[in-house]
Amino acid sequence: MRKRTLLAVSGTAIALALGVAIAHEADHPAVKARTSIMQLYANNLGPLGAMAKGDMAYDADAASKAANNLALLVQLDQSRLWPQGTDADSISGTRALPAIWQNFPDVAEKGQALAQAVNAMQAAAGADLEALRGAMGAIGKACGDCHETYRAPDQ
Amino acid sequence: MRKRTLLAVSGTAIALALGVAIAHEADHPAVKARTSIMQLYANNLGPLGAMAKGDMAYDADAASKAANNLALLVQLDQSRLWPQGTDADSISGTRALPAIWQNFPDVAEKGQALAQAVNAMQAAAGADLEALRGAMGAIGKACGDCHETYRAPDQ
Repeated sequence: MRKRTLLAVSGTAIALALGVAIAHEADHPAVKARTSIMQLYANNLGPLGAMAKGDMAYDADAASKAANNLALLVQLDQSRLWPQGTDADSISGTRALPAIWQNFPDVAEKGQALAQAVNAMQAAAGADLEALRGAMGAIGKACGDCHETYRAPDQ
Repeated sequence: MRKRTLLAVSGTAIALALGVAIAHEADHPAVKARTSIMQLYANNLGPLGAMAKGDMAYDADAASKAANNLALLVQLDQSRLWPQGTDADSISGTRALPAIWQNFPDVAEKGQALAQAVNAMQAAAGADLEALRGAMGAIGKACGDCHETYRAPDQ
């Protein structure tokens, strides 16, 4: 009985230790920062997409504020945010595929495409709904081009 | 026995339902965006603070990149991010005290103090370590002034 109890206790200790290890990996500072940038992209694309689809009334001021925020976010320097060993095969808490680290020039090019699409949106968003809609396609394409190649499927 | 099993099952169902409710509150889009901005502040203050304390060798390029990122982040429009009912007394997943919503002008003033301190850091970070150190105090004071008044203690 004593032995069985000890086994059970050490099993729990191992499970706890593993849990802590996984939590630490999900808390990797580079992953947290990358996720935060993606979260802020989504938060500002939300109202622009909703207006483009007609789910939200067009509001020039709100559209401009969201587009201006995106224009700031695409300028963030991310050079510290992609250290080796922070891909989805190495740690939990990220969907970043290892292919990113084998194709940095292509990833950077796709990032530039997003920055250009966002700058076009910044010029268009406050003009009128048609201009906003016209600028939305290039942003969606830039997001998709990168995610299809470099992001693991949601599980 | 049947009754006891049913009670146990419904207890689990209630716990699961509560768990889902708490998860949804923590996932409030405004809270997620606010947390993301704070996370990105921390990610860029990290190397600046480490250099100031002598825990990391001074690197003008790295310091400038971090300061430039902060200068972008303080420009983000947050007008959509503080809706009524997203304080720590109303939902989980945030430490934002209700006092924020009773003192918006003061919160905005404290935000301006941070923006000014960050702009001074942007000018100083790439110059030399003494300039960086000199700019760090005002940033720490701006963070502390807001957190002491408007953020619930960590639990």
